[in-house]
Amino acid sequence: MTPSSPSDPLRLLSFAPRGDEVRVGVLSKEGRIVDLGAGAGHLGMKLCFDPAQMISLITAGERARDEVRTLLEKASPGGPRVEEVRLFAPIPVPRRNVHCVGWNYVEHFEEGKSLRDSGQTLPEHPVFFTKGTNAVNGPYDPIPYDPRVSTAIDWEVELAVIVGRRGKNLSEEEAMDHVFGFCVLNDTTARDIQQKKHGGQWWKGKSLDGHAPMGPWIVEADGFDWSSRRLVSRVNGVVKQDGNTSQMYFKVPRLLAELSLGLTLEPGDILATGTPPGIGHARKPPEYLRPGDVLESEIEGIGVLRNPIQAV
Amino acid sequence: MTPSSPSDPLRLLSFAPRGDEVRVGVLSKEGRIVDLGAGAGHLGMKLCFDPAQMISLITAGERARDEVRTLLEKASPGGPRVEEVRLFAPIPVPRRNVHCVGWNYVEHFEEGKSLRDSGQTLPEHPVFFTKGTNAVNGPYDPIPYDPRVSTAIDWEVELAVIVGRRGKNLSEEEAMDHVFGFCVLNDTTARDIQQKKHGGQWWKGKSLDGHAPMGPWIVEADGFDWSSRRLVSRVNGVVKQDGNTSQMYFKVPRLLAELSLGLTLEPGDILATGTPPGIGHARKPPEYLRPGDVLESEIEGIGVLRNPIQAV
Repeated sequence: MTPSSPSDPLRLLSFAPRGDEVRVGVLSKEGRIVDLGAGAGHLGMKLCFDPAQMISLITAGERARDEVRTLLEKASPGGPRVEEVRLFAPIPVPRRNVHCVGWNYVEHFEEGKSLRDSGQTLPEHPVFFTKGTNAVNGPYDPIPYDPRVSTAIDWEVELAVIVGRRGKNLSEEEAMDHVFGFCVLNDTTARDIQQKKHGGQWWKGKSLDGHAPMGPWIVEADGFDWSSRRLVSRVNGVVKQDGNTSQMYFKVPRLLAELSLGLTLEPGDILATGTPPGIGHARKPPEYLRPGDVLESEIEGIGVLRNPIQAV
Repeated sequence: MTPSSPSDPLRLLSFAPRGDEVRVGVLSKEGRIVDLGAGAGHLGMKLCFDPAQMISLITAGERARDEVRTLLEKASPGGPRVEEVRLFAPIPVPRRNVHCVGWNYVEHFEEGKSLRDSGQTLPEHPVFFTKGTNAVNGPYDPIPYDPRVSTAIDWEVELAVIVGRRGKNLSEEEAMDHVFGFCVLNDTTARDIQQKKHGGQWWKGKSLDGHAPMGPWIVEADGFDWSSRRLVSRVNGVVKQDGNTSQMYFKVPRLLAELSLGLTLEPGDILATGTPPGIGHARKPPEYLRPGDVLESEIEGIGVLRNPIQAV
């Protein structure tokens, strides 16, 4: 393997070397984590951001990313491997709910169509909704299963966009300049709650604790082509969803333009861009996750989330 | 007027004596603001919370409120009046989206019913949705009006509950122990966006910048009866909504119990509990806010929000 070159997109993660103290790290090509705070300390570098806070790094912009590249180049290569530490969601506690898009892959729209009452046509605008911050979960952490709450937990692998710069009323042309990076997000959904319990509003069924595993890291936007990436979900190793971001009905620039209309986006905002066909709820008969299952969510060029379903 | 007695509910607010530096204050019976940080400094008191952060005060629990009572009793009575400073929303930047309830007053449910496609009956569960943190606005600040974004901005005066203690799967019996206080919130809504643009999901039409004026202060739950308070909205002095919290279909304990099912509530969470009849959208012909209008939102025993509609 060759060392990272300055043009490789950074892979940034939040981890705990021990205990629960969150630190921000960058992944080397050799699969080792460089602890940004500790690395800067050893090198006597003063960072322009708080190395315990991914949002601080994001907000600090290009200068922060230059500092990370310097650390990646100069820091000791003997950091821990991913499997030796605990990884958190890259943004463990977002500042507000995760923005989400529904029905954004044409085939997924078709499969869901038969489930709905009215014969809707293809949408003129994206379907936006949110997931609560309490839903955010680590890339390898368990997803809680409580049958008193839901017995119809479903999978939705999605490409998540991480906003890098504040902006409002963005044009499609300028939207991508506001993107910091991308990660995998599973928009895990309690279908019984989403569809039946709250008058058709999805938020609660999308917002149970732990129902938004994210990560495993943020891949920097510069140098990463988001527009034709395979995305796959598997349950116990069996492929359930196998799509490509090229099948998005509304593409990322359009989503950000419409999302930001009258609504200021902030650094660290997360936008999950919709899921491809293959959800459990649309299968005949429907399939849902059960305790002991392992849900994997993968995007080509980013990585894999691996979350066991755990009875509480 | 008599000085506050220990049994009066505290009225806590966020304000800027000058500039934009946020401080937390408590309102005296004489209508003066006691600056908690400055007051503690003068008295040589060490506070158990950060007096620049309402969420810190809320999280610190009963001990913090005891300290506030001491300050109210002992601090110099010559603080500024409300109209001499800038007031922010009591929680200027919530940690996550505002939780909201739709169709929660029986008569409002009826007036909206004719507008919807299907003949829904009264709900078995509350309709939950959220408003973005960017919507949160001060009690006297302008609500932006941009015709490129929406021309159908409507009013919804609501009682907002401020959560004081972390909790999940709360019973109705224990729910009120998790309430810190109450304030007024206007769930200002862009009806054209809410109803037509995003596939029936309300979030975006509920989340334009500045579309959730809040305040003017949080009235402490202890000693405040939320269950039969008149709530009124006025546009340019004309009464548009005139209801009573006694008409809530799902009461506050039920709302909190159902909201917390599988979803951990946190100190500082905000829950807007729905609006009484009289919204503009249900009028014949429909009425919406226009630049230059002044929207007032009042709840008996709490106070009045007064927000001008301002073209941007």
